[in-house]
Amino acid sequence: MWPSNRLTKLLGIETPIIQAGMAGGPTTPELVAAVSNAGGLGTLGAGYMAPDDVREAVRAIRRLTDRPFAVNLFVPEPFEAEEQKIEQAQALLAPYRAELGLDPADSEPVKIEGPPFEEQLEVVIAERVPVFSCTFGVPAENAVERLKAAGIAVIGTATTVREAEMLEQGGADAITAQGSEAGGHRGTFAGPFAAGLVGTMSLVPQMSDRVGVPVVAAGGIADGRGAAAALALGAEGVQMGTAFLACEESGTHEKHREAIGRCVDDGTSVTEVFSGKPARSIRNRMMEELEAYAREFPDYPIHNGLTKPIRSEAKKQGRPEFMSLWAGQSAGMSRRMPAAELVKAVAGEVEQVFSRFSK
Amino acid sequence: MWPSNRLTKLLGIETPIIQAGMAGGPTTPELVAAVSNAGGLGTLGAGYMAPDDVREAVRAIRRLTDRPFAVNLFVPEPFEAEEQKIEQAQALLAPYRAELGLDPADSEPVKIEGPPFEEQLEVVIAERVPVFSCTFGVPAENAVERLKAAGIAVIGTATTVREAEMLEQGGADAITAQGSEAGGHRGTFAGPFAAGLVGTMSLVPQMSDRVGVPVVAAGGIADGRGAAAALALGAEGVQMGTAFLACEESGTHEKHREAIGRCVDDGTSVTEVFSGKPARSIRNRMMEELEAYAREFPDYPIHNGLTKPIRSEAKKQGRPEFMSLWAGQSAGMSRRMPAAELVKAVAGEVEQVFSRFSK
Repeated sequence: MWPSNRLTKLLGIETPIIQAGMAGGPTTPELVAAVSNAGGLGTLGAGYMAPDDVREAVRAIRRLTDRPFAVNLFVPEPFEAEEQKIEQAQALLAPYRAELGLDPADSEPVKIEGPPFEEQLEVVIAERVPVFSCTFGVPAENAVERLKAAGIAVIGTATTVREAEMLEQGGADAITAQGSEAGGHRGTFAGPFAAGLVGTMSLVPQMSDRVGVPVVAAGGIADGRGAAAALALGAEGVQMGTAFLACEESGTHEKHREAIGRCVDDGTSVTEVFSGKPARSIRNRMMEELEAYAREFPDYPIHNGLTKPIRSEAKKQGRPEFMSLWAGQSAGMSRRMPAAELVKAVAGEVEQVFSRFSK
Repeated sequence: MWPSNRLTKLLGIETPIIQAGMAGGPTTPELVAAVSNAGGLGTLGAGYMAPDDVREAVRAIRRLTDRPFAVNLFVPEPFEAEEQKIEQAQALLAPYRAELGLDPADSEPVKIEGPPFEEQLEVVIAERVPVFSCTFGVPAENAVERLKAAGIAVIGTATTVREAEMLEQGGADAITAQGSEAGGHRGTFAGPFAAGLVGTMSLVPQMSDRVGVPVVAAGGIADGRGAAAALALGAEGVQMGTAFLACEESGTHEKHREAIGRCVDDGTSVTEVFSGKPARSIRNRMMEELEAYAREFPDYPIHNGLTKPIRSEAKKQGRPEFMSLWAGQSAGMSRRMPAAELVKAVAGEVEQVFSRFSK
């Protein structure tokens, strides 16, 4: 058991291992509850979920655990709907639709709105979810006030020290330092994405030196060596995403799981081809073919909506070449095991590392 | 004092802290000797040096220390001299030359050869330099054989697990894992540069798992927190570059030093504008203005030769906007102090970190 620290006290957990709030399906109530029951903090990745589905999932989690857990949402961001970019993206995507047997273009009108953050947030507050975490920005002042009034701890995501300072200023109780190794979407919200690709080794100590609230290290951590390294750097806890994607309870597609199992250290890239927003994914055909056009894609969430039918159909047909295979640079270290075992394994490995170097 | 390990035994040093072999001036004999005298391993960055200058510097180092030290060289790589790209680069660089008061184009013919690796290597062998380190590739089999026959330890540089395996196969006694956080040139030599940007947190454990020789962590390490993290990840030593650039004995230009002192976590980018080869530098005017043309620059070392007169003159005039301000993502953590103090401070901090987490 790690010694308790400010983060374990804030969250009411035993072991400062957080399962990342990965949106789009992997964070089943079973996964979230298994992590929390093992002493860590499970997180429902509710970013894309309808408010009613969030409520249902929260209640399902509560039936499986009485320990603290988190719900993760996306802070809304400004975006532009540029007709020409949308048409161009549709033309580029049409051959993939055809290859999957979908109509050349979506019969539905193009969706130009993001997830219903306000309504999702109402559910989080009404259900008194123990921990709220978010990415893509600083939540509005009144949102943070209402969360805190409801006794809900708030964790923000930062990819630079400056973003961490903005989140602390905005009332965050803890901040996740998302290093460049991390899988999935970059949380960068202030400044260019490329500059926000700071490695965990550099980001965590600089952020710990500059903010007063606990820092949670994320990016490249898949075992106790990484978790011990994060603590050495000044983090009070770790967040792991890809490592939990490989766990048995996760809703990860089998082809995604297989790709993670085969992934090597340089097998991922940060790409905008799937959502219009930079995210780290295992390289596949769709990334390689569309990468050259990435700068011309419509903004997130519009582009995300355009590729969604393709990615959904690819999942049905089991074709990973058209799926977003989110994964971090330590994907190759993932282990297929029950989530509770992973939490215990990592905690045990941390102890081993520190006992090896203690006199 | 850290416990001795395979790396300290291989190199004959007390503290597994290596000062990176930064080419182009900063690694004065005084810096190299100070690091070695403090129990670490100083390195002469001889990549661009004429063979006679290498010999002279090695002898100067020996007058200042009887401890082991290293000489770092660049393994030659294939490149193409494309007339059209050279002319275009000259046109793009002409305004900078004018601004600095240089002739519109160099009066010397364009230099289309790299540093004289074979002759530099002869000096290393003849002088029986204790440790040879290299970057940009795997040295030829006969070079490694001759180095080893002379009792010289060989350290290679890898940015991916695959490169590390190639270096081990090629006879390296230890391998530096250069994470994406590292300042200066990327050592990537097998596969695309973009894929070779793997964070230290991901690279070190995966490399340690896959090669049998000791791994040295590089990239993002500037204090004992980073060094302790590297050991936790499985490295047997650390290499620090930017942290030593800030040391008093280094030949770092004062304007470069000032830029390092002001640098924040997201203040650097990997760029090809200075040398035709990706390298991490503090962003400045030349990077921002030329970045869009980077793909069209002539190959390294040709482009490096084209920008050299500009960078040299900028140093003379103290104009950092035209200098290559190599720095890693932890530049902001650098401390201006004598190198021996830095080695001792980092070693002490490592002990503090581990004693904090031991029972």
